[in-house]
Amino acid sequence: MQDTDRDLLPEGLEDRLPRDAAAAARVTRAVLDVLDSHGYDRVQPPTIEFEKSMASRMAGVQPRRMFRFVDPASLRTLALRSDMTVQVGRIAATALAQHARPLRLCYAGQVVTIKGDGLDPTRERLQLGAELIGNDSVAAAGEVLAVALEALTAAGAKGLSVDFTLPDLVDALAAEAMPLDPEAIEAVRRELDAKDAGGLVAAGGQAYLPLLAAIGPFAAAVEKLAAFDKSGVLAGRIAALHTIADRVGSLARLTLDPSERHGFEYQSWFGFTIYAEGLQGAVGRGGSYAILGSGTETEPAIGFSLYPDDLIDALAEAEPRADTLFLPLDYNAEVAARLRAIGWRTVAALSAACEPVALGCTHRLDGTEVVRL
Amino acid sequence: MQDTDRDLLPEGLEDRLPRDAAAAARVTRAVLDVLDSHGYDRVQPPTIEFEKSMASRMAGVQPRRMFRFVDPASLRTLALRSDMTVQVGRIAATALAQHARPLRLCYAGQVVTIKGDGLDPTRERLQLGAELIGNDSVAAAGEVLAVALEALTAAGAKGLSVDFTLPDLVDALAAEAMPLDPEAIEAVRRELDAKDAGGLVAAGGQAYLPLLAAIGPFAAAVEKLAAFDKSGVLAGRIAALHTIADRVGSLARLTLDPSERHGFEYQSWFGFTIYAEGLQGAVGRGGSYAILGSGTETEPAIGFSLYPDDLIDALAEAEPRADTLFLPLDYNAEVAARLRAIGWRTVAALSAACEPVALGCTHRLDGTEVVRL
Repeated sequence: MQDTDRDLLPEGLEDRLPRDAAAAARVTRAVLDVLDSHGYDRVQPPTIEFEKSMASRMAGVQPRRMFRFVDPASLRTLALRSDMTVQVGRIAATALAQHARPLRLCYAGQVVTIKGDGLDPTRERLQLGAELIGNDSVAAAGEVLAVALEALTAAGAKGLSVDFTLPDLVDALAAEAMPLDPEAIEAVRRELDAKDAGGLVAAGGQAYLPLLAAIGPFAAAVEKLAAFDKSGVLAGRIAALHTIADRVGSLARLTLDPSERHGFEYQSWFGFTIYAEGLQGAVGRGGSYAILGSGTETEPAIGFSLYPDDLIDALAEAEPRADTLFLPLDYNAEVAARLRAIGWRTVAALSAACEPVALGCTHRLDGTEVVRL
Repeated sequence: MQDTDRDLLPEGLEDRLPRDAAAAARVTRAVLDVLDSHGYDRVQPPTIEFEKSMASRMAGVQPRRMFRFVDPASLRTLALRSDMTVQVGRIAATALAQHARPLRLCYAGQVVTIKGDGLDPTRERLQLGAELIGNDSVAAAGEVLAVALEALTAAGAKGLSVDFTLPDLVDALAAEAMPLDPEAIEAVRRELDAKDAGGLVAAGGQAYLPLLAAIGPFAAAVEKLAAFDKSGVLAGRIAALHTIADRVGSLARLTLDPSERHGFEYQSWFGFTIYAEGLQGAVGRGGSYAILGSGTETEPAIGFSLYPDDLIDALAEAEPRADTLFLPLDYNAEVAARLRAIGWRTVAALSAACEPVALGCTHRLDGTEVVRL
């Protein structure tokens, strides 16, 4: 009797078997080691929290995407985390409110959503990230993006590319140089995001049409953006993009999509999406945003999240198998301990039936000698 | 306005702040590295599963202790995991059913219960462990316990002690040498577990009274157990205990409590609890058990789980703070990268207002030179 009900996993949830789990552990360590080397302190929020904490501190977190249930202790609604950024924001605004700024924090953990994303049924993902709190300057943006790319490279990602965006672009333009009716702003944003020229004109955004041409490889696109910005409202943002591009241009291919909004609803002046060769979809994204403090005041922040599951799957196929040393029944425990201390992985026989090759061993211990199988 | 509702965490759930999180990461890595060096392959089951999968594969997992909620995709009940052992059992019985035995697996992750344990309100814990599947022999027991103790030592635990138990002792005795009415067996077990001599006699277990004296330091207690075992029914178990004690006696202080049942309800012939100096409560426990396969057949297994949260809290106070190098505004990026490559942790200035000491730095970069602050 195979595959009984008891054996199934719910849709969008998976086990990581040994090769995958080894790749996941290696990628996680590589990323966290890079973040630590740049001064980002790890924090670890709980797996579940009050729904209200998760939902109210930052725009852009949708309670409807979270598994929610009642806490018998408090009779309040709890949620399984779908995003750790908002939890790190809470920590920065409460327990670490008195720490010197800028505050550099990082995190790693599993996040779960109640539904998959579009066609992808995956409901649990590994999220790794870093947040720089108290500063969302151009220097902060450059650091955060450079650290993200270094971390991905250390994890084994190849052929990185970064797509820049300016999430509050339409608001900035509409407020000064290119006024729009308040009710038209959202429509213009939407049509720009959809890259729909006809819809943009119909929404009253004819003047914004040139933005749809300022998309593509960074150097050419930013030039078109500058040409479009006759009023100079965007001059500061354009200079910032150049500074960031100079800093990370050797680490990734750069593109610009200034009016991309999707997924950047809670970002302020700067956003980015990171892609890697051979992987469908983004491997990471980030940008500047505001954290709500204990009261109504906010604090600027900038950070990124990596979702390396696809990278892990791709790397798992080539995950090196460690040499493994079979210890026969009568092995010398001290010799085995010495070999482990210099990096050997051992598998001890428990009975005469233990077969070294079937158990994945590449070598066997013969007295004090290591012999290749 | 401080401490609004939004800032609170539910009872029994906590953030790990930087020092604690660093200690947790170090302990986790140390334990997993030891398990890997002994040939235990990491697996990573999902955070949530069907309640039925979690509850039905092993006795001893109580669905009532898990957060449960309905899956809108399947309309079935899901549960947040409260124990990873049962998930690893599922993996061994399904995806890895065809792998050679013995199968060595390990895991690390957060587990959540709906209620705390007795007076301890903690509802989320870190669980680390290893399972040896397909073999629950004396050799397997010795390996598993030795690996657990080595892992705890590597993690920084001191003054380890191990309390042995024989979970199916009463069943074994009642079946052969010391018959009990079937309805008396459970009562005798309970009174032995409670160490209640009066209750034991009342339950019809007078003959079992000497077991209450066979408790304490291993050498003396096992001698009393042997003296009590006139029929020789326990001879095999007693010899096994001696073999295991010989193997791990140099790693921990050993005690015996042969009739302890609490927490070992699903263990078969052998169980153990691990304590460490300075920590209240057990830091780990383990033993032999049976995994239910896809059908009705079972497979022997032996393993352990560590719950190192208290150890982490204790170690966090002494967690060494890494030397941290302040990079002034005009720092040379190549010099900084070279220093990180040899192990330096850096914190870059983002503005003239960044103050090295407030940011936790111990050194600063002056041109190409590292200067202590």
